Amino acid sequence: MALVLSLDNPSFRAYIFYASIVILKLLFLSVLTAAQRIVKGVFGTPEDYKTFGNKVPAKPIIDEGIERVRKNHLNDLENIPVFLVAGLLYLFVNPTPTAALWHFRLFGWSRVAHTVSYQLGKQPWRVIFYTIGLCSTVSMLIVTLRAVW
Amino acid sequence: MALVLSLDNPSFRAYIFYASIVILKLLFLSVLTAAQRIVKGVFGTPEDYKTFGNKVPAKPIIDEGIERVRKNHLNDLENIPVFLVAGLLYLFVNPTPTAALWHFRLFGWSRVAHTVSYQLGKQPWRVIFYTIGLCSTVSMLIVTLRAVW
Amino acid sequence: MALVLSLDNPSFRAYIFYASIVILKLLFLSVLTAAQRIVKGVFGTPEDYKTFGNKVPAKPIIDEGIERVRKNHLNDLENIPVFLVAGLLYLFVNPTPTAALWHFRLFGWSRVAHTVSYQLGKQPWRVIFYTIGLCSTVSMLIVTLRAVW
Repeated sequence: MALVLSLDNPSFRAYIFYASIVILKLLFLSVLTAAQRIVKGVFGTPEDYKTFGNKVPAKPIIDEGIERVRKNHLNDLENIPVFLVAGLLYLFVNPTPTAALWHFRLFGWSRVAHTVSYQLGKQPWRVIFYTIGLCSTVSMLIVTLRAVW
Repeated sequence: MALVLSLDNPSFRAYIFYASIVILKLLFLSVLTAAQRIVKGVFGTPEDYKTFGNKVPAKPIIDEGIERVRKNHLNDLENIPVFLVAGLLYLFVNPTPTAALWHFRLFGWSRVAHTVSYQLGKQPWRVIFYTIGLCSTVSMLIVTLRAVW
Repeated sequence: MALVLSLDNPSFRAYIFYASIVILKLLFLSVLTAAQRIVKGVFGTPEDYKTFGNKVPAKPIIDEGIERVRKNHLNDLENIPVFLVAGLLYLFVNPTPTAALWHFRLFGWSRVAHTVSYQLGKQPWRVIFYTIGLCSTVSMLIVTLRAVW
């Protein structure tokens, strides 16, 4: 019997590919936040102000650009880790390689497009891409649940 | 030798079932946030106000109901993804099917009950259900750590 | 052929060990938040004030110590769940046990050191430990991606 979690399984290879892409995308927002903080001189703690050469402001500064990246990041945290687990479990109910590939592909690219539309402030695109990603995850969960019910 | 990650393993089936339930529960809070934002006309970005037909307010509105869902959601993010990994690793130390089922069952239903008590503002129930879920995760981690030490 | 996900694989054992350590560390911040809230009498919802014997304040109190733990916790959520998945997938591309152990070890201890330096307000240590953890995760993702490309 072939192993589900093996590089010989094309569905698992597709999972690894898109899982890596969305994780790198999520981590990119960490780097983007740090870059914006340094360029703008706006930080979250007193020691950051001291280390990076600015005076500590009398009250916390709310920068719109940084807030936008942080909300985008939080939205990723709400959607990407659970996709990663849902996608892995879905592999065990023997989806066709085509079905698996399309679930992962739709999630992966819709999350990339979600980040682009979030950072450019483009609605309704952001909602559309968010919904595509959510539907992919929910679809995999329902297929998986039905197989173990 | 029987595979741990196989639908023939009843503990893995129980894991898949409760993992799917708690992921769906977590994602439900996304939908609940969006629904509240649209009904109340309170959004997080200027483009959302424009797209959904409201004027952008002079300063951000803090809505108690939306904040409650967001805190609940964040609490899920703090507990559910790590449970999902802890539960998967726990399967490899050969727990009895009964022990595995009860760890997953207690976590799963306590998180559902936690969300209900959070949304209804019921204390000390919220703390009790939170603690049950946390104890289940920590118990699995300790059993797992002792097996690989 | 030897199984990747088996306690006979020393790399998987190392993964389980460090995964458990970082999950316990992340969950410790939940407990630290709760402890600070109770000691300081500063809570997030009206029912918490009532249950724990304080009057509800006219406007939300922002406590610096609690905010510090919460930001630390959020930083964990941005980095630990994706490491857990990236590390698991990395095992499938057959790293040498030494390479695997060092990736997990650097991530694990750098995240512990990150939390200590965050709570003590020590910069640039916090940034240094954060960067070590990030580099470990990104390195594993790149190695994994190249194997399935």
